[in-house]
Amino acid sequence: MKLCRYDHDRIGVVRDGRIFDASAALDELPPLHWPVPYGDQLIANLDDLRPNIEAAADKSTPRALADVTLKSPVANPSKIIAAPVNYRKHLDEAKADAEIHHGTKIKTIDDAGLFLKSTSSLVGAGEGIAMRFPERRNDHEVELAVVIGKQGDRIPRARALDYIAGYAIGLDITVRGPEERSLRKSVDSYSVLGPWMVTADEIASPGNLDFRITVNGEVRQQSNTSYLIFDIPKLIEYASSFYTLNPGDIIMTGTPEGVGPIAAGDEVVAWIDGIGDMTVAVRNA
Amino acid sequence: MKLCRYDHDRIGVVRDGRIFDASAALDELPPLHWPVPYGDQLIANLDDLRPNIEAAADKSTPRALADVTLKSPVANPSKIIAAPVNYRKHLDEAKADAEIHHGTKIKTIDDAGLFLKSTSSLVGAGEGIAMRFPERRNDHEVELAVVIGKQGDRIPRARALDYIAGYAIGLDITVRGPEERSLRKSVDSYSVLGPWMVTADEIASPGNLDFRITVNGEVRQQSNTSYLIFDIPKLIEYASSFYTLNPGDIIMTGTPEGVGPIAAGDEVVAWIDGIGDMTVAVRNA
Repeated sequence: MKLCRYDHDRIGVVRDGRIFDASAALDELPPLHWPVPYGDQLIANLDDLRPNIEAAADKSTPRALADVTLKSPVANPSKIIAAPVNYRKHLDEAKADAEIHHGTKIKTIDDAGLFLKSTSSLVGAGEGIAMRFPERRNDHEVELAVVIGKQGDRIPRARALDYIAGYAIGLDITVRGPEERSLRKSVDSYSVLGPWMVTADEIASPGNLDFRITVNGEVRQQSNTSYLIFDIPKLIEYASSFYTLNPGDIIMTGTPEGVGPIAAGDEVVAWIDGIGDMTVAVRNA
Repeated sequence: MKLCRYDHDRIGVVRDGRIFDASAALDELPPLHWPVPYGDQLIANLDDLRPNIEAAADKSTPRALADVTLKSPVANPSKIIAAPVNYRKHLDEAKADAEIHHGTKIKTIDDAGLFLKSTSSLVGAGEGIAMRFPERRNDHEVELAVVIGKQGDRIPRARALDYIAGYAIGLDITVRGPEERSLRKSVDSYSVLGPWMVTADEIASPGNLDFRITVNGEVRQQSNTSYLIFDIPKLIEYASSFYTLNPGDIIMTGTPEGVGPIAAGDEVVAWIDGIGDMTVAVRNA
């Protein structure tokens, strides 16, 4: 199932490039009171709600994707985790380019570990990227994003895939500079997730997916998730050795070589095999 | 007002070292539905609820602090922001001690900016700190924590204090090592907030507060917030130049010199002038 969120917190199922509204199924979600539990309650209850979502979609009149504003398919992640240097050739380019490393020693992922992006930076494809520091270099980084489906702590590699609700395209937009990654990559709108989430049952081989990103039609990054240094089970095992993962937590798995600048007026199109195309406009904040 | 959260999501007002339950006031909070808005809804509505909280406390029979389990006074922060090297003498010790810098170039806060801690790392004083990597060095860092009261973006210095709901003691517990700060400081239970939040109206001079931390009775860190390199208005202005702040967001303002290891069995007592004492037990996870 391709599950999307759009317009004013409606949800829909994407079939053959059209949206079938399934918002009626949200009535089944348990009510929330302060304090709310960690994580996204739609993702947490997705297995139970899925028949209702499919049934609601079956009854609805489809709409064209172009007629709606796509939001992040995960509304309430408790964290956005990202892998800093998880493709060998991106590690090489980061070491070689002073505009990327800014005098900071670039470590391997074994040494650098993972970093956090603010949840306030999260937007969907239709919301676009707002450049906040246009005088600095702001780069696109395209990645496979994993959405965690249930709470887990110290998850062994062998059971890691059981904790995945689905996959989406992630853009880890980055201001270059000397500051901590968790600041430079946490600007409002600098985490794009979408265009929808494809449930895990529909992605047979997440470790072997072609993907690419174009800026104004020019291919900038093109790779395959088989080149990940920490593969998906290892990322889940490693992350959960430090902290509890919650439903809706997002792991951006890392970007390959070819990162480069974007600016207001650019149109970014990212594609991942089995997920689809995601078009995102860049503007000034 | 000293506002605490305790036991199973009860709230209380602390007066003369005793807790007056005020949970009845929570009935006034608006109901929540997926997706929930960013931030802590108790903090977001605190100005409106405050008369009801005080009135409920007036009617309740007090309990001894020792009889309850103190939780984090903020339940649902959207982010925990922290300042990495915001006291000159801590910067000096970090540069001098290989067990702290681990071969990473220690920058000034102007260069390093701010980092994020996971919200899943947040606990209250009564929940204690669970050492997850006892074979590595795990340090205490005591800091003044600022709780943001309302949403704000690009907040100018002159209006920064208007965005503060209150203050608490923050412990930024840290595994030393080469990894990103946002990973090493995000282990479950490695962010302690408490023992309660003192509303901003009761702290006249947040930029001139004595504070200290003892471990098993030995004073380890002792300073005053007047030594902050980025003071509180500057931290709010700077943070909000990158991302939107939400009600309940926590800013840990930085730790002074004297950071040092803790281990299972230790008792940590932190104190900040105008807030009070916070006792936290350390155990193995």
